[in-house]
Amino acid sequence: MNTKRTSQELVAKREAAVTLANAKRRRFLTRSASVAGTLAAGGMAANAAAQEVPPWMKTMGTPMRAYGTPSKFEESVRRPSASGYAKVTPGAGASRTPHQSLEGTITPSGLHFERHHNGVPDIDPAKHELLIHGMVNRPLVFNLEALSRYPMISRVHFVECAGNSGANAQAKPLQVTAGAIHGLASVSEWTGVPLSLLLNEAGIASGASWILAEGADAAAMSRSVPLAKAMDDAMVALYQNGERVRPEQGYPMRLLLPGWEGNMSVKWLRRIKLTDGPTHTKDETSKYSDLQPDGKARQFTFELGVKSIITFPSFGHKLDRHGLYEISGIAWSGAGRIAKVEVSADGGASWRDAQLQGPIYSKSFTRFRLPWEWNGTAATLQSRAIDEKGNVQPTRTAFTSQYVPGMNYHNHYIQTWGVAADGSISNVHA
Amino acid sequence: MNTKRTSQELVAKREAAVTLANAKRRRFLTRSASVAGTLAAGGMAANAAAQEVPPWMKTMGTPMRAYGTPSKFEESVRRPSASGYAKVTPGAGASRTPHQSLEGTITPSGLHFERHHNGVPDIDPAKHELLIHGMVNRPLVFNLEALSRYPMISRVHFVECAGNSGANAQAKPLQVTAGAIHGLASVSEWTGVPLSLLLNEAGIASGASWILAEGADAAAMSRSVPLAKAMDDAMVALYQNGERVRPEQGYPMRLLLPGWEGNMSVKWLRRIKLTDGPTHTKDETSKYSDLQPDGKARQFTFELGVKSIITFPSFGHKLDRHGLYEISGIAWSGAGRIAKVEVSADGGASWRDAQLQGPIYSKSFTRFRLPWEWNGTAATLQSRAIDEKGNVQPTRTAFTSQYVPGMNYHNHYIQTWGVAADGSISNVHA
Repeated sequence: MNTKRTSQELVAKREAAVTLANAKRRRFLTRSASVAGTLAAGGMAANAAAQEVPPWMKTMGTPMRAYGTPSKFEESVRRPSASGYAKVTPGAGASRTPHQSLEGTITPSGLHFERHHNGVPDIDPAKHELLIHGMVNRPLVFNLEALSRYPMISRVHFVECAGNSGANAQAKPLQVTAGAIHGLASVSEWTGVPLSLLLNEAGIASGASWILAEGADAAAMSRSVPLAKAMDDAMVALYQNGERVRPEQGYPMRLLLPGWEGNMSVKWLRRIKLTDGPTHTKDETSKYSDLQPDGKARQFTFELGVKSIITFPSFGHKLDRHGLYEISGIAWSGAGRIAKVEVSADGGASWRDAQLQGPIYSKSFTRFRLPWEWNGTAATLQSRAIDEKGNVQPTRTAFTSQYVPGMNYHNHYIQTWGVAADGSISNVHA
Repeated sequence: MNTKRTSQELVAKREAAVTLANAKRRRFLTRSASVAGTLAAGGMAANAAAQEVPPWMKTMGTPMRAYGTPSKFEESVRRPSASGYAKVTPGAGASRTPHQSLEGTITPSGLHFERHHNGVPDIDPAKHELLIHGMVNRPLVFNLEALSRYPMISRVHFVECAGNSGANAQAKPLQVTAGAIHGLASVSEWTGVPLSLLLNEAGIASGASWILAEGADAAAMSRSVPLAKAMDDAMVALYQNGERVRPEQGYPMRLLLPGWEGNMSVKWLRRIKLTDGPTHTKDETSKYSDLQPDGKARQFTFELGVKSIITFPSFGHKLDRHGLYEISGIAWSGAGRIAKVEVSADGGASWRDAQLQGPIYSKSFTRFRLPWEWNGTAATLQSRAIDEKGNVQPTRTAFTSQYVPGMNYHNHYIQTWGVAADGSISNVHA
């Protein structure tokens, strides 16, 4: 049985312990205070008799559809994409989750970020197989039907590219959306077979300590993974948010390594080879290594750091009147659960705890929120996440000083948004 | 902080307490037993050197897309739709979630069931308003921007039509899929503003005890809701699985009444009127009332009963070899959390506890799973859910005896699937 306090109970607890406090220069409001306080945030006085019948109530609506899509009025909520190699290999590049337009914690599958090294292969699931070989007692091959007979698990986890937020490594802050900077991170409910079951069935030979995982794309994207992770919480994922994994996420099956850099969660998984060390593939030597000022690079940074971003307000939003707003954002950590998120409106001079939306999953997005009264003057918004292991999200200065200028992998430092007196929002390096 | 045991810990606990037991006639296996036991479920011996490079590794893949869709090989996973009034009003009818093809607990937004009384209105969100009036101190009107400034909450909840599973009320069992019978129930992560905030801001006048909620569709679909529910866990939902609520789910806003019959969670919400009693609208007198043998009908059955269905194996699946399978299904209750799901393979003569996938949300789907060894003879599969309030899912006989034959609302009795010796599955009334 579930012994956790319900979200409803947590809200009730908060509301019973209402305090109204001022941050140093900017005013934060507790949830209940915002309710009792003011009409400024909300409805306008209405003349009920004057409510007009809108045109869409005077005509028949459209019928049922076999598979739904968003409203035509949401056509701007899309994955922006970029490819540095568009002319040569149009499938090499990335598209990003538009966090500035989303709420909650689940990423709609249609907006889950993409990062491909040679595009999305068109795989016939009836002809796809997963081979487990190398240092095993008996090599095994699994088709989709065979895999589907194993016990499955469902887990809500983020996938984040090691290059996410790399845009902020540039010396001058780019004036682009939260999704354009931080959109290489998304969350799904993944369902599949624990990899440990399959490895145990193949029988792990003495001396095996790593695996090599290879995808069935034309890049044969492959990565080395320590065996301990493969036997811990790794999964061969077959379903994403209830339906079969999407093509751009590895249809019909992907490796999922919760909390580790996304490139290792190999899509279109076709082969796992047990080895006695890392294979040093092109995909783990030419990329994803972090160059330090002394000329040495950290090659393997697997577990992703504790991180958060404010998604509202952020670049592209406009605060068009003074008064109450709710700051909203997402926080996550490769090390486990988010324990706390602090929010500052004065560039880090003072902090206030945000409310965390439960249940808080391990290695997943946690939505944080905090009512904030904007008085119409300039403000500097930041969020700082702390995970259950005590890891604290670093400042930009603290993080970047470890590496050469422009090092754009594994960036998890604090994002700063500047609010101007006219209500416009800009990306700031602080 | 989250004090709940993690899913991983629950699995570990189960695996530490492994027991292997036989049900009376049919063999259930615990999760670990299935792992240690047999190759019958899984991979085939492989000659690694013989693995061929598939054709999709020899050609460049497709580039990134702005909004993703499922694989073309999944085109059969669609919402079947039916309209009893197709010629007159093509928008009056329903489409259903294909549970037999899904896993996990989240329903992909594109496959969330639909039930419309006059189709999907084409609403311009910039021109849509929500009016709160009637027995309030000050009538208020909210546009989308105003609503978005209120504190929001995210909740994972099912929505289920009162007519779901009504097909099983027919005397002869229909040979159709789990989705065709039970597909008027779906789960999303909903994000929006607690209705209580808005009602408090309007000021509830003395004597108000109900609300009337009206939609902006051409049917002006409207229902009466007790004020206590509106002030408890009701929400004006603005987001569904991270993005704006889909058009067929009420874009740009819907009422959400967790655990209550779906028709009351009024879509395209345009008006809430506070009243001193139920309004007895056409939508709550012509439908959703349960006729008893004495000629009297129960008019208001708001909270939905405890329920479960096995989704694999179910009608349309075929067990093509003997050996290990994992029975998988979903359970839910309008009264709260699922406490237990029992599975029988002998038509209810004996039962065994299924494993529940955590975290277990209130008023949401809980995925249950149980390894099962099919020995190739006929079997009769059933699941029975029990919720945290102690409510037990009834048998078909116990439920239907309360009403006139064919009463097809609020059906939550046990679903029976017959497994034939040839591995085919049929719908059975038991």
